[in-house]
Amino acid sequence: MSRADGRRPDELRPLDIQPDFLEQPHGSVLWAQGKTVVLCTATVDDGVPRWIAGRGTGWMTAEYSLLPASTGERTAREARTGRQQGRTIEIQRLIGRALRAVCDFQALGERTLWLDCDVLQADGGTRCAAISGAYVAARRALDRFGLSKVFRESVGAVSVGVVGGEPLLDLDYSEDSTADVDLNVVMTGDGRLVEVQATAERDPFSRDRLGELLDLAAAGIETIGGEQVRGVEAVVG
Amino acid sequence: MSRADGRRPDELRPLDIQPDFLEQPHGSVLWAQGKTVVLCTATVDDGVPRWIAGRGTGWMTAEYSLLPASTGERTAREARTGRQQGRTIEIQRLIGRALRAVCDFQALGERTLWLDCDVLQADGGTRCAAISGAYVAARRALDRFGLSKVFRESVGAVSVGVVGGEPLLDLDYSEDSTADVDLNVVMTGDGRLVEVQATAERDPFSRDRLGELLDLAAAGIETIGGEQVRGVEAVVG
Amino acid sequence: MSRADGRRPDELRPLDIQPDFLEQPHGSVLWAQGKTVVLCTATVDDGVPRWIAGRGTGWMTAEYSLLPASTGERTAREARTGRQQGRTIEIQRLIGRALRAVCDFQALGERTLWLDCDVLQADGGTRCAAISGAYVAARRALDRFGLSKVFRESVGAVSVGVVGGEPLLDLDYSEDSTADVDLNVVMTGDGRLVEVQATAERDPFSRDRLGELLDLAAAGIETIGGEQVRGVEAVVG
Amino acid sequence: MSRADGRRPDELRPLDIQPDFLEQPHGSVLWAQGKTVVLCTATVDDGVPRWIAGRGTGWMTAEYSLLPASTGERTAREARTGRQQGRTIEIQRLIGRALRAVCDFQALGERTLWLDCDVLQADGGTRCAAISGAYVAARRALDRFGLSKVFRESVGAVSVGVVGGEPLLDLDYSEDSTADVDLNVVMTGDGRLVEVQATAERDPFSRDRLGELLDLAAAGIETIGGEQVRGVEAVVG
Amino acid sequence: MSRADGRRPDELRPLDIQPDFLEQPHGSVLWAQGKTVVLCTATVDDGVPRWIAGRGTGWMTAEYSLLPASTGERTAREARTGRQQGRTIEIQRLIGRALRAVCDFQALGERTLWLDCDVLQADGGTRCAAISGAYVAARRALDRFGLSKVFRESVGAVSVGVVGGEPLLDLDYSEDSTADVDLNVVMTGDGRLVEVQATAERDPFSRDRLGELLDLAAAGIETIGGEQVRGVEAVVG
Amino acid sequence: MSRADGRRPDELRPLDIQPDFLEQPHGSVLWAQGKTVVLCTATVDDGVPRWIAGRGTGWMTAEYSLLPASTGERTAREARTGRQQGRTIEIQRLIGRALRAVCDFQALGERTLWLDCDVLQADGGTRCAAISGAYVAARRALDRFGLSKVFRESVGAVSVGVVGGEPLLDLDYSEDSTADVDLNVVMTGDGRLVEVQATAERDPFSRDRLGELLDLAAAGIETIGGEQVRGVEAVVG
Repeated sequence: MSRADGRRPDELRPLDIQPDFLEQPHGSVLWAQGKTVVLCTATVDDGVPRWIAGRGTGWMTAEYSLLPASTGERTAREARTGRQQGRTIEIQRLIGRALRAVCDFQALGERTLWLDCDVLQADGGTRCAAISGAYVAARRALDRFGLSKVFRESVGAVSVGVVGGEPLLDLDYSEDSTADVDLNVVMTGDGRLVEVQATAERDPFSRDRLGELLDLAAAGIETIGGEQVRGVEAVVG
Repeated sequence: MSRADGRRPDELRPLDIQPDFLEQPHGSVLWAQGKTVVLCTATVDDGVPRWIAGRGTGWMTAEYSLLPASTGERTAREARTGRQQGRTIEIQRLIGRALRAVCDFQALGERTLWLDCDVLQADGGTRCAAISGAYVAARRALDRFGLSKVFRESVGAVSVGVVGGEPLLDLDYSEDSTADVDLNVVMTGDGRLVEVQATAERDPFSRDRLGELLDLAAAGIETIGGEQVRGVEAVVG
Repeated sequence: MSRADGRRPDELRPLDIQPDFLEQPHGSVLWAQGKTVVLCTATVDDGVPRWIAGRGTGWMTAEYSLLPASTGERTAREARTGRQQGRTIEIQRLIGRALRAVCDFQALGERTLWLDCDVLQADGGTRCAAISGAYVAARRALDRFGLSKVFRESVGAVSVGVVGGEPLLDLDYSEDSTADVDLNVVMTGDGRLVEVQATAERDPFSRDRLGELLDLAAAGIETIGGEQVRGVEAVVG
Repeated sequence: MSRADGRRPDELRPLDIQPDFLEQPHGSVLWAQGKTVVLCTATVDDGVPRWIAGRGTGWMTAEYSLLPASTGERTAREARTGRQQGRTIEIQRLIGRALRAVCDFQALGERTLWLDCDVLQADGGTRCAAISGAYVAARRALDRFGLSKVFRESVGAVSVGVVGGEPLLDLDYSEDSTADVDLNVVMTGDGRLVEVQATAERDPFSRDRLGELLDLAAAGIETIGGEQVRGVEAVVG
Repeated sequence: MSRADGRRPDELRPLDIQPDFLEQPHGSVLWAQGKTVVLCTATVDDGVPRWIAGRGTGWMTAEYSLLPASTGERTAREARTGRQQGRTIEIQRLIGRALRAVCDFQALGERTLWLDCDVLQADGGTRCAAISGAYVAARRALDRFGLSKVFRESVGAVSVGVVGGEPLLDLDYSEDSTADVDLNVVMTGDGRLVEVQATAERDPFSRDRLGELLDLAAAGIETIGGEQVRGVEAVVG
Repeated sequence: MSRADGRRPDELRPLDIQPDFLEQPHGSVLWAQGKTVVLCTATVDDGVPRWIAGRGTGWMTAEYSLLPASTGERTAREARTGRQQGRTIEIQRLIGRALRAVCDFQALGERTLWLDCDVLQADGGTRCAAISGAYVAARRALDRFGLSKVFRESVGAVSVGVVGGEPLLDLDYSEDSTADVDLNVVMTGDGRLVEVQATAERDPFSRDRLGELLDLAAAGIETIGGEQVRGVEAVVG
């Protein structure tokens, strides 16, 4: 089976990232992966929520949102409906856990790191792009304050899935919506697992299939990791 | 390392289930797994939401809630605060996906299956107990209407984790809160995977570790499956 | 006129109560009155809300909820709709007033007593069952902390009504929905009135009718009081 | 004991009512009872909510609100906080039940009667004043449409209570806040009971006490009924 | 073109104002301008919100609401729907800015001035009537506390518009709903501008047209200012 | 007085606009005016809200939002707090009125035009930038469907103000926060007024001052209009 955009099964979509896309936030990156475009920003505030103050450790919070026109059919603005959708909440909890797993909160000290991931255009894989981009935005913000040791290692993510019986890397929206199995994988730069979220959209799957998919994801995240290094180290403006 | 309640690492907590615990709902079960107690009920309504009507297929929705006094420290009632917590939403989405993966919506016809999982007492593993129990409640409700073919196979769940470096089956709350890795696994009766949700709470983990944990889960779910069969087939009253 | 379940007009439904139904809350009781089943729990916390702190007196709060599948036709979960219904609010205010009327807040000291009444199955009279059960749960929690003097006397409740022209004790749902007059009565163990809520559902009623109904209620609450004593004093586990 | 404003125990506060206080609503009355001032309006709309349409019967809904500056200490605006308080909900449910009990919904036909009771100034007894005034506003609105037969009889309300051991009629705020027993009574024009809501604020009370209070209320409501007749029949403008 | 009520183009509707309409609030006025009737109240509280405390300066907040039956077609109660409409929010922000522009917060000291504008009957121009009336209510409240210097000058407002090609002063609802241009003007007693909000409802307009409309408004506000003086100085009761 | 960025008093900030910044929405533009960056998108849907269907005319709705990290100090996400702030609501109502004033809804036919203005970076003048950009995005979307006649003329906006006694064009955030008078002006391409919103932040102002400010705005909007033409006509990709 060939993919609509001509990619090989184990090929990522083209990555195009613009570090410090904005001037005012402490750190930011415009992360484009194929047609999926996510604006990730990071803000470092002094102080932590009252209920953990005085312990010398920091706090991190992640938020995720789809801009209304980001999706093929316009999505209602959650500020308008008055509540975040279940999907939004699930995704921002995932982003938060992914970044926290590699964060040294002692090294952060009594500061709060806000990560905002706003999807400007959605074409599949937005939660994984948000994680990969949030790491870059966070590093650009932290490095500015001499806090580059806060992350013990890098973290990136990619989606893989089984479409028409074939394992594919980095699904776009049309692939994702016909996948039998859908797997989001978050890994550290040195290849260890942070999160595995596998879902049988149509058919339950075997342990072997899970293994194949994890192999595919590991290779993809390695490539993404290289791009993240370039984003963190880029000299802008 | 020995477990506080004397269990072996690969041992489930005692299961005590009461099918048709209530008379009025179409199906119900009081699922007790150690001190964790979940009341699962299933209601079959004619008709489906307007936006899928007329296609001859059914609909299923799952809801999950902690009763305020179910937790060690009382939890605020979500009806009072006016919104479901992120954790609640994440869990009920998981329960819904788990059951939908084995459901034949054509066989259900234009009916809605409501699954309600209310945790009366929480001591770890409530989302997995809810899935295992929801299957039993759903089957008892469906069988009553001659719809026993709606589920293509059974589905059960268990949590496993790494505590103090050792893989353990069916964590209770005290174990769960000190786990390095936490894994919720949903499997069918014939041993295929429906959902895998692995999280590095403290340390990223290796592929080998993931394998060990999945082995442990598979054995546990097999035992749970036997109990589910007894629950589905029990003659009550 | 004979009642559907064969009871005499002045006969309560069978009471079946299980004190300490749960292990974790400070006090609990599963109160079954016919098919109406209410889980009442009581939690004693140190401290009171900020705005009454420092006066040496305690605080009590009561909450009431119908589980979705408790009713014949499934009720929407209030946590989902984002607001408690008027009926829920009215009932939990009644439960709170009933228990507060016999509570010595000086004796409670700067503690908060949480009473949670969750209806697992509803067949009429849930608010009265909740009051009767909440008293038992509260006493089991308070006695555990040596606070058995907090309640100056016991309190119980029952519904009465006029159905088909005849006064009946302890209406079930089918009777309640055809009643001309509906009366909820809360009384102390020594027979004094705490709350009287009489409503002409169909026809305004006379003072004499009110008197008959109060007589019927007084006898019923006396019987309930005996069951409450057994529940408070039961040795469990 | 003498009352602060010199009234006898069985004396109402002065009534000053202005029918058709506003020009635009179908019916309105400014009901002043002592310092308590309630603006009651009634609107008759064609049609009923969808779920009762086609049966030929009408619908009535009542709403109650305190204006922020109506109370001694300013009350937060419920539109601002985003939810109605429990007290508000309880009161508007009472108003609705009181008026529905004397309403012939067949005679109303497929129309909706909106009753709005907005308290401009609160000095005790606002829920009872709202009921008495709502009846007048409703009648003025209905009579305009030739629907004067919709109410089978008139309905009025008054509060009574025990203050310092003495039964008093028509409590003002200072009396109400020190009452041992508080009783709201709704009666028809011919002296039958529609609602009795008795609450032991401090001490449980006897059946005899309840009798005395009901006698006091009945006399007060009779006087109010005369004023209502004048309000319904007044020729304005 | 002649106006429906026979007014000249530059003529205000009749003003009928009742200062201290209520006894309990610190200041109040019932402001009737034609059929538009607004109840404005002012409350002076000691203290300011926490986040500006300790600076010796005061705080002011304004709220606006339409009573449900104030409009021709009944408006849903915002406390019921759980959120204020955009129009309400826009108007109360305007009222707040108008009054703040002439307020000396140093002179107010650490006090909060609450202004509540509740529209009892709406026939166009309610936001302007609310501003004119709020000034009177505020002055009556402040004068009572010896704070008559808090307002550096008086402030009033009026709406003007172009209807059928002709500039008109003080539009009523029927005029407002057919206006091509709609202009709300807030001015001080000495003729300076505080707010100008001009909107082309149908056709964009010229600078000259804006000039004509401002002339018309200035004359109207001068007349209103005279009425405000009488309202502030009236001896009541 | 010289401006911090060296601009003349009557000089706009540099404009940098990218039409069709995104591929998926029907029309989009990234509008940068100095450091203020707004992403405007336009979506054309078939159909209109039910309550205006069948009249052959269209509908337009505008929404505005600040991304959390767009502001110097991070702004809470409105989807999180559950309600849009008053400022947000006021601004999106202004955007909607501005665009509607030049829209021929007959020419639009039974379609809905969604305009979304999301501020990626805020440095003053965001509401005016949103209006200017929304026009470009809307035109790009409409032209794609052969609906270029829907807008009868172009519309643009700019803010002006008095800072330190001097009238200035196109205030940035630091200027805006010290302005005595703040004026947002919306004009058509041929120089007629659509909206004038003038506010005395500190001191009431004279008619002459208003005239000077409108002159300054008119010149600025003319320059913006030229840029809009380039944006509408640009050939992208």
